[in-house]
Amino acid sequence: MPDILHKVGIKSPSVNEPYQAVATIKGLSDWWTNETQGESKVDGTIRFRFGGNGGFDMKVLELDPGKRVLWQVAGGPDEWIGTKISFDFKREGESTGVLFKHQGWKEPVEFMHHCSTKWATFLLSLKSLVETGKGLPYPNDVMIDHVASIR
Amino acid sequence: MPDILHKVGIKSPSVNEPYQAVATIKGLSDWWTNETQGESKVDGTIRFRFGGNGGFDMKVLELDPGKRVLWQVAGGPDEWIGTKISFDFKREGESTGVLFKHQGWKEPVEFMHHCSTKWATFLLSLKSLVETGKGLPYPNDVMIDHVASIR
Repeated sequence: MPDILHKVGIKSPSVNEPYQAVATIKGLSDWWTNETQGESKVDGTIRFRFGGNGGFDMKVLELDPGKRVLWQVAGGPDEWIGTKISFDFKREGESTGVLFKHQGWKEPVEFMHHCSTKWATFLLSLKSLVETGKGLPYPNDVMIDHVASIR
Repeated sequence: MPDILHKVGIKSPSVNEPYQAVATIKGLSDWWTNETQGESKVDGTIRFRFGGNGGFDMKVLELDPGKRVLWQVAGGPDEWIGTKISFDFKREGESTGVLFKHQGWKEPVEFMHHCSTKWATFLLSLKSLVETGKGLPYPNDVMIDHVASIR
């Protein structure tokens, strides 16, 4: 099955800053979408919304401090349901390497190509948040298309 | 085998502007790396360089005007040799959809994660070039890491 894979290197005092930005509702609100609600705890559900354009419900499967965050998609577009999204953190000199995987896509549909590019922009938003204090979460996200509903 | 997949939507008068930006040495120089040389013709070789950080030699396999560009990697990092890179263009309203694939990776190594994210930034550079006349090719590329040699 095809996967979406990404990596960014984030300058940070420790792995903790990038980890907290992925493991907390406040952090996620500051780099992915400012419409983030729910409980970031194992077996909790986090709801990500994007104005009137729908969104995703993620069940939290793993929260391993400073090391790993794993979600499974419980609600959202058909293609996303059941897929898993992981963030792995590791120290690399003065940076934290963040390895990202969105796995379990049934087919490499065109929507998957779009989501791959869009994930890259959000991971760069995460990098910016940790390094500068300011990310580019929805509705200030980087546009990769001209169709309003898919941005 | 794992693939890198991306899609951007580029506002353009026709498919021709994005196509030309991928099918010509001048276009490639303006969004990927300003150290681009060679011949963009079928069976020709294009050499992409990035200062002292090496680069890639691509053999041109297909040039289908307004529709498709296909390269095969003939020189570069071991993981890239033999892989294929394609750009497919199609009209979508006032935009051109560009579907990108970098296929034939043997393993989903960490370097592949990095390249996936970096390709996204270059495809957004292509989008910017066509829409605004200005891209962000090397050495003005978007940094996704803090290790100088892999940026």
